Amino acid sequence: MGNTIGKNFRVTSFGESHGPGVGAVVDGVPAGLRLRLEDIQADLDRRKPGMSPYASPRKEPDQAEILSGLTGDGLTNGAPIAILVRNLAHRGTDYQDIAKKFRPGHADWTYFVKYGIPPQPGGGRSSGRETVARVAAGAVARALLAPLGVSVRAGTDAIGTVKASITDYAYSETDPLRFLDPQFSPLAQLEVEKAMERGDSVGGTVRLIATGVPAGLGDPVFGKLEALLGKAFFSIGAVRAVELGDGIRLSGLLGSAANDPIGPDGPLGNLHGGILGGISTGLAITARLFVRPTPSISISQRTVDLDLRAAEIETHGRHDPCIAPRLCPVAEAMALISLADCHLEGAHRL
Amino acid sequence: MGNTIGKNFRVTSFGESHGPGVGAVVDGVPAGLRLRLEDIQADLDRRKPGMSPYASPRKEPDQAEILSGLTGDGLTNGAPIAILVRNLAHRGTDYQDIAKKFRPGHADWTYFVKYGIPPQPGGGRSSGRETVARVAAGAVARALLAPLGVSVRAGTDAIGTVKASITDYAYSETDPLRFLDPQFSPLAQLEVEKAMERGDSVGGTVRLIATGVPAGLGDPVFGKLEALLGKAFFSIGAVRAVELGDGIRLSGLLGSAANDPIGPDGPLGNLHGGILGGISTGLAITARLFVRPTPSISISQRTVDLDLRAAEIETHGRHDPCIAPRLCPVAEAMALISLADCHLEGAHRL
Amino acid sequence: MGNTIGKNFRVTSFGESHGPGVGAVVDGVPAGLRLRLEDIQADLDRRKPGMSPYASPRKEPDQAEILSGLTGDGLTNGAPIAILVRNLAHRGTDYQDIAKKFRPGHADWTYFVKYGIPPQPGGGRSSGRETVARVAAGAVARALLAPLGVSVRAGTDAIGTVKASITDYAYSETDPLRFLDPQFSPLAQLEVEKAMERGDSVGGTVRLIATGVPAGLGDPVFGKLEALLGKAFFSIGAVRAVELGDGIRLSGLLGSAANDPIGPDGPLGNLHGGILGGISTGLAITARLFVRPTPSISISQRTVDLDLRAAEIETHGRHDPCIAPRLCPVAEAMALISLADCHLEGAHRL
Amino acid sequence: MGNTIGKNFRVTSFGESHGPGVGAVVDGVPAGLRLRLEDIQADLDRRKPGMSPYASPRKEPDQAEILSGLTGDGLTNGAPIAILVRNLAHRGTDYQDIAKKFRPGHADWTYFVKYGIPPQPGGGRSSGRETVARVAAGAVARALLAPLGVSVRAGTDAIGTVKASITDYAYSETDPLRFLDPQFSPLAQLEVEKAMERGDSVGGTVRLIATGVPAGLGDPVFGKLEALLGKAFFSIGAVRAVELGDGIRLSGLLGSAANDPIGPDGPLGNLHGGILGGISTGLAITARLFVRPTPSISISQRTVDLDLRAAEIETHGRHDPCIAPRLCPVAEAMALISLADCHLEGAHRL
Repeated sequence: MGNTIGKNFRVTSFGESHGPGVGAVVDGVPAGLRLRLEDIQADLDRRKPGMSPYASPRKEPDQAEILSGLTGDGLTNGAPIAILVRNLAHRGTDYQDIAKKFRPGHADWTYFVKYGIPPQPGGGRSSGRETVARVAAGAVARALLAPLGVSVRAGTDAIGTVKASITDYAYSETDPLRFLDPQFSPLAQLEVEKAMERGDSVGGTVRLIATGVPAGLGDPVFGKLEALLGKAFFSIGAVRAVELGDGIRLSGLLGSAANDPIGPDGPLGNLHGGILGGISTGLAITARLFVRPTPSISISQRTVDLDLRAAEIETHGRHDPCIAPRLCPVAEAMALISLADCHLEGAHRL
Repeated sequence: MGNTIGKNFRVTSFGESHGPGVGAVVDGVPAGLRLRLEDIQADLDRRKPGMSPYASPRKEPDQAEILSGLTGDGLTNGAPIAILVRNLAHRGTDYQDIAKKFRPGHADWTYFVKYGIPPQPGGGRSSGRETVARVAAGAVARALLAPLGVSVRAGTDAIGTVKASITDYAYSETDPLRFLDPQFSPLAQLEVEKAMERGDSVGGTVRLIATGVPAGLGDPVFGKLEALLGKAFFSIGAVRAVELGDGIRLSGLLGSAANDPIGPDGPLGNLHGGILGGISTGLAITARLFVRPTPSISISQRTVDLDLRAAEIETHGRHDPCIAPRLCPVAEAMALISLADCHLEGAHRL
Repeated sequence: MGNTIGKNFRVTSFGESHGPGVGAVVDGVPAGLRLRLEDIQADLDRRKPGMSPYASPRKEPDQAEILSGLTGDGLTNGAPIAILVRNLAHRGTDYQDIAKKFRPGHADWTYFVKYGIPPQPGGGRSSGRETVARVAAGAVARALLAPLGVSVRAGTDAIGTVKASITDYAYSETDPLRFLDPQFSPLAQLEVEKAMERGDSVGGTVRLIATGVPAGLGDPVFGKLEALLGKAFFSIGAVRAVELGDGIRLSGLLGSAANDPIGPDGPLGNLHGGILGGISTGLAITARLFVRPTPSISISQRTVDLDLRAAEIETHGRHDPCIAPRLCPVAEAMALISLADCHLEGAHRL
Repeated sequence: MGNTIGKNFRVTSFGESHGPGVGAVVDGVPAGLRLRLEDIQADLDRRKPGMSPYASPRKEPDQAEILSGLTGDGLTNGAPIAILVRNLAHRGTDYQDIAKKFRPGHADWTYFVKYGIPPQPGGGRSSGRETVARVAAGAVARALLAPLGVSVRAGTDAIGTVKASITDYAYSETDPLRFLDPQFSPLAQLEVEKAMERGDSVGGTVRLIATGVPAGLGDPVFGKLEALLGKAFFSIGAVRAVELGDGIRLSGLLGSAANDPIGPDGPLGNLHGGILGGISTGLAITARLFVRPTPSISISQRTVDLDLRAAEIETHGRHDPCIAPRLCPVAEAMALISLADCHLEGAHRL
């Protein structure tokens, strides 16, 4: 289980890395929304591998097909929108060794413990390829929310020890690492190149901003917008810490330095990071995602094989030396899905 | 909405700060579990205000009543367990000023925007008092999981700029701030005292450890244990960032330094923080919660009144100068609820 | 599990027959609704035992307490509304015999098989007393829907072999069996009296009508209004068949006799029973519930005791000779809960 | 919304009559189940149109493709199973007239009211074609439950005024109307032929039996097995009444005639219809579904066009003169889905 998220904008993800395809069913979209295949394709293309020297060279066309949910005129009809992306670039031989040994740092071991199945080619369901489903669903959310003025962007904030000093989301779209800072991008690239040379990988952080979010989204208690975003971001494979607003810094401050005064239109500052008491204030929501280094490295590591005998493993294949840049569109998708879910909640007051 | 959490161990929270009471309905507990009122009371007592010079002096007996779900012999009967804690220590006059002005940093403003209701005494539903429901439900989860060997403990890891250098959970139970480090606790206390003298508050961090968690808990994709814990922790009012394992540090490392080798019984180290691919490995799960300073301070702040006219507000009343210590039992409860939910999931394999 | 119903108007029921009390938590009610305790009490009083010579003589004051969800002004505040009704009229001795033997036709056996617990006093969770929670929650739904013009009424349509020839809902409120037909009520009463004399019970049917339901409630496929009502009605203990509109008669007709022509405001007749394709048309929704005779009879029956040895059982105690009349307010509640759930669904179209 | 059913065995249906295809995502199936495409295909073939002179002549190969959820060895892997069936036999011209007028008795009007979209070709989402998704998902449930000995069969019990006098499920598989009684099948066929000659349609009933169901499935209160089955059956388009066991007859009986005595292995008779108090007893579960006549008839009917002007409509096209026979595999699927959902519920007792 665990393949569906959301209450009002419900996304069900399916598909494995080396199966026929991956996809999503999006339920809850109101009728009458113009949804273009190219809107979905645009976000899928931003996620695609093979787009940069620093990303996996796996070539996938990642061509989406909308299977349902549209009228003949291209408007949503209120029914679930199923989107399918075929897997075409299997290269099973890359994984022959893997299929017989557990990869350290991967889901191979825990899937084996839980499901009793040996490591699947390309990681099967645990593969980053599953995020195609999220990005496709996120594109539907984006199409729903864009007319309200909602915009969600993410970029790479740090690679290894190199941190961006500014957050320029427009620039990051053109950067080979989606780095947010043109000045330090060359250093970040060097960090990745050094890792690549050694057959190693490196971690990073992703910074995200959602602007134009209407005030009033989110619920109290377990339905807090913080909780929904926290769940959404932590559901991304490599994410191991999440900060909303300037949450880490706030934990070291005095209250008098952490409260935004209130004016007739709401908070006058944004130390609160766009959410108060679980509910959006209308100001920008920001988040930082801390991304562990990709576990698949070609340096030899100790592990066991399927008979639980000690073994060495080197994971060759077409892996990303740093997954943070490719998580950017995924992080956007998860934020969009969460915001759409809140947006579609029914009336809160008579 | 948003007042229920969990799929298999479902907790529904109800109640406001100054209403008749707060409570929880816990559904999904298997029949045959011995559940003692004193088990619930013990955790409620650990959460209670008035227990330390550094906590709100509000005195609440917080006496729980189990309304349903037990046989005459004190065993669970498979039906929902409803637990009620009456509110006795209202002191409405503390809040007279508040009721007419929006408190900066509080949910007052966003609740007003969303629900159209003015600030409620004590914060109403957004009050920390709601966490009584969580701690009561968490105690049920603890009773369910303890026989499996699961133990969850949390302590204060930092207050303002003072950080614990060790994590001694046994010691922290006796510390007035639940500080994890006896050596630095006096400094942490000083930090709180300084804030109290100024009528100010101060932030902090909470560290949590879950041991004895069986391997195999959690699901892929959106049901990852990271996602469930992320949601659970971010649903706690003042939490603005969450780190699982050493997630922040990992984001700056190379993959070769971040993978735990695998032996015949699973991972040989715990850099992965007890969870791989959304599923527990059987090793300790750790988390750090970054807690903002309490917004209620008696220093004058700019705000608006109910007619949206500029005003000054000083929040007197019985507030906690640092909420982190009191979040410790709440964080434990949220972790226990999440783990119980995973534990009760049906068969994953034939 | 299974103690919560609804997606947008969520009702969680708790409590056993002979425990401290029964109650409901109702989540999803928008803020700003005036909710009076007497509204809830009025429906509880309509359900109460001891109100007629033909109902269980058990005397319960069934006094409701609203534990949460209201502002000081008696308006809903958007938070969950918890309602508690204490059990006062336990008479455990009635059930001493029962506690040692399984009652034929009761849930005793299946609860034992599923939960491993022996028969509980008064049936425990399976007792009709649990319907107090439903009626209380239904009263909240009624308060929410009444301003829209929605009215839901149920009456007894048949007792044993005596059928009502008309459906006079106003009259039925005053009838000792809630019989819908003043002319045949004496015969129906005779049917019950004959059963009572023998220590027997008798079945019946309940007829329900919902008027003023706005067009557009309900969803396609699994969320059809028929499906929601079907689930809601079949969740009532003694209901073993459910007919919507004239569904049974329709199954024997030709299509040309079963279609309502359409005019500019929608269907011109109501052979379709107020719902087409899962969605309400705005015309009256009607239903008939077929209610089995109460299994608790004082005639001797074959059963087994807790050691699974053959035994005879006579169920004395304060049982209803015909439960159909007392199900009427419960059926209303379940319809109201279902309609409120649909009504609170978010936007279906842009 | 409303396109997902189930808690533990979750089925999400998607697709419209004249779109690219229809399908289902089935989540919750444990790993290790051998699932063959031909198992799914076998049930789809039983549902297919064009198989009898009395069914729609629309020819659809209805070839299923499993898109996800299997290992390379054909075992389930614990991930969601997505199944797609392409639509090939569109014949849009049949529906040109329909697209401009509302069909009496159809969902056209209510979908227009709810979603603001005009009638879609073939009924769009409300088409019986959607049941392909259910039958495919039901086949997965069948594969899961068959090893436990669970068998679910449905046949046609009545057509118009012709009722089966026996229920021979083996025979019905070979009958052109899936009629349960070889003796009366010719009369039933005559009933359909008479309707066909007039361009009319006729109603009927479907009888279903589930054997080998383990005792203990289902939950109390809203999760009663009756409630799950009631919801499942009423979610089928043309079903307007549902009887479990001999529910209608029971409502006219005395309690002494309606209780099954209990022996050491449970109830000794099956007047209770396989379910007591919401929970299965292990005896056969039976149900009867009352099916309205197909609304699509070629006899002229009064309606309005898209401009709400009075119009006449004759629905030509490839419609079923009696839909009851084709609902049999759908009813089976819905029962199987419900039973699988209960079967996969986690532990009920320690």
